[in-house]
Amino acid sequence: MAIVTLTTDFGSLYPASLKAVILGIEPETKIVDITHSIRHADIRAGAFALYSVVDYFSKGTVHVAVVDPGVGTQRNSIVISSGGQFFVGPDNGLMIPAALKLGDMQVYRITNRELLGKISATFHGRDIFARIGAYLSGGMNPEDVGKKTGDYVNLDFGKVQVKNNSISGEVIYIDDFGNVITNIPAKTVLDVAHFDQKVHVFDRNMSFVQTYALAGEGEFVALIGSHGFFEIAINRGSAGEELDVDCGDLVEINFS
Amino acid sequence: MAIVTLTTDFGSLYPASLKAVILGIEPETKIVDITHSIRHADIRAGAFALYSVVDYFSKGTVHVAVVDPGVGTQRNSIVISSGGQFFVGPDNGLMIPAALKLGDMQVYRITNRELLGKISATFHGRDIFARIGAYLSGGMNPEDVGKKTGDYVNLDFGKVQVKNNSISGEVIYIDDFGNVITNIPAKTVLDVAHFDQKVHVFDRNMSFVQTYALAGEGEFVALIGSHGFFEIAINRGSAGEELDVDCGDLVEINFS
Amino acid sequence: MAIVTLTTDFGSLYPASLKAVILGIEPETKIVDITHSIRHADIRAGAFALYSVVDYFSKGTVHVAVVDPGVGTQRNSIVISSGGQFFVGPDNGLMIPAALKLGDMQVYRITNRELLGKISATFHGRDIFARIGAYLSGGMNPEDVGKKTGDYVNLDFGKVQVKNNSISGEVIYIDDFGNVITNIPAKTVLDVAHFDQKVHVFDRNMSFVQTYALAGEGEFVALIGSHGFFEIAINRGSAGEELDVDCGDLVEINFS
Repeated sequence: MAIVTLTTDFGSLYPASLKAVILGIEPETKIVDITHSIRHADIRAGAFALYSVVDYFSKGTVHVAVVDPGVGTQRNSIVISSGGQFFVGPDNGLMIPAALKLGDMQVYRITNRELLGKISATFHGRDIFARIGAYLSGGMNPEDVGKKTGDYVNLDFGKVQVKNNSISGEVIYIDDFGNVITNIPAKTVLDVAHFDQKVHVFDRNMSFVQTYALAGEGEFVALIGSHGFFEIAINRGSAGEELDVDCGDLVEINFS
Repeated sequence: MAIVTLTTDFGSLYPASLKAVILGIEPETKIVDITHSIRHADIRAGAFALYSVVDYFSKGTVHVAVVDPGVGTQRNSIVISSGGQFFVGPDNGLMIPAALKLGDMQVYRITNRELLGKISATFHGRDIFARIGAYLSGGMNPEDVGKKTGDYVNLDFGKVQVKNNSISGEVIYIDDFGNVITNIPAKTVLDVAHFDQKVHVFDRNMSFVQTYALAGEGEFVALIGSHGFFEIAINRGSAGEELDVDCGDLVEINFS
Repeated sequence: MAIVTLTTDFGSLYPASLKAVILGIEPETKIVDITHSIRHADIRAGAFALYSVVDYFSKGTVHVAVVDPGVGTQRNSIVISSGGQFFVGPDNGLMIPAALKLGDMQVYRITNRELLGKISATFHGRDIFARIGAYLSGGMNPEDVGKKTGDYVNLDFGKVQVKNNSISGEVIYIDDFGNVITNIPAKTVLDVAHFDQKVHVFDRNMSFVQTYALAGEGEFVALIGSHGFFEIAINRGSAGEELDVDCGDLVEINFS
């Protein structure tokens, strides 16, 4: 029994028609919502969401990802095969970090119209990606969607730079706790710092610790989140609101 | 393996007890959430949500719909059979547009108390509709709930009027992108206008185009949404917030 | 086919990795979201959510509950067995009211590290509770996680006091309708009052009735909610917003 996951910026309502299409083709499929609350059109936040959970899924899982501001324009549709899992969505970089996390990837451009029915101009999630996702979960070979290509849109989480005790990077996601997640990997941080050290970031001083509750209630804390990136949180509060930062903002962290 | 869908204004928490009841009766049923974020007590918005996705579901699907401000009063409970799918919910019009979209419908009033257990005064979703939905998904004949009736509450999406190059109608739904969806069907629009024409609506001038990204970022755009109705959007923004309109508001669109 | 439910304060994104872990171990398991919108770190609200739905689930159901501000500290992890259902989560009281509702309970401290893989400091939901939940849904004996214990963190919904026609208690949950749910059980109310009596609460006069629609639109109403507790609502409005009350606030109700 294959799993199909969904990662979108749809909010409610629209995911249901993807599910209807998938279960219409493969009634035994298990559908798992990763999230439907990616900030509207924020491809990089969607890429992070998928990246952060992908390695917990089993071989054979199909990830349908739709953060797709270019729907209906000339952008391509692709399938990616990597580490025994599959990805289906727009060719806008959304699925690249997750696919690369699993290993070497093969990218296929979706050109086989025989697999598809009527296609609306505004909802390829339902009319293309859900259908292809269902077929893949049923065992279709990714090569059946179209030719392998080396020409696809890339995406990474932005630059990280280290200079003595200082690391600069970017905010890539703010989760529903208000935790501010950066693009700075654990390894980069642990090369220049150690737990219980003081750190200065966004004009605040805080401790770099192993878990939230090691700060007092309402206090800022810096840590490595469960996704493996440097993160700023408030114990039982929302760092994102308090700092008024947003995805894409630059961050500089200084360990003392 | 049958599908049971849920369409409610419950938000979180309460849908879980419907799922518990359904799986307690039919453990193999697949449950698909259509939405639980219908605006509180907005029967017409709920009717639109169900209507917009119903034809993507397979024969045998059972739709449990509960936007039910009259719960515990004298309003009836009904089952509708249409096009091989079933609907269960309050007799307040909620399920009518979706059922009619599938073809001729048969309406049955739920009177067979033997199918039900203890019924609370405030939560028929859990105590009546989920149970009946589970039985229907298990193959129960809709006639087993009670007698067929021609006496039920009707609902439509309101009047649409055409006058030269002008069409008037109503806002029926604002989706989570902030797209303002009207009750004006694609056909009505395409009879008087063509793509790339200019249109004046809610005191704004915009283009009537085929997809969102054909407008500049932050610009208004008018189009036919994936649900088949005329819709006003902002490319990467929220038209609903910007225009400050609400479900039920009148809309007049003028093509030039 | 066993059911695993999830009750968390995670919002979106993080529940998906619990689901990935569970389905990786037990692919046939049905996962039911109870809610992921418990107010951040509000253990008692989480306890109420689980308590309010638990008795609608079948024997064999496993409830994974994670409202866990103490994650990564010295707090213990436990499994509870009660009435044929199982609970897995932090030892902070979260699961106690639900377990007690089902009957006599057995508490086991999770100490068997052989069941677990790599454990992060910040995400025991994914690294401990989801795994143990999956094993229990697959038939593992709760004794396999570790020794039975009588030493666990207790939790109740706070004091309720009756004095003539007056009852005092606390707000324990505000649902997505804005209904203000107190810790005062139906029985306590019905011992001192009867339906259609007037009641004074939070400086407002309202009627104590059987269902929402018995008040006029926009009017306050007091009733016994479907969860069995005294509740204050506004017919088609949000009592929580209008009264500006919060979980934990004291409430005094006076019947006249």
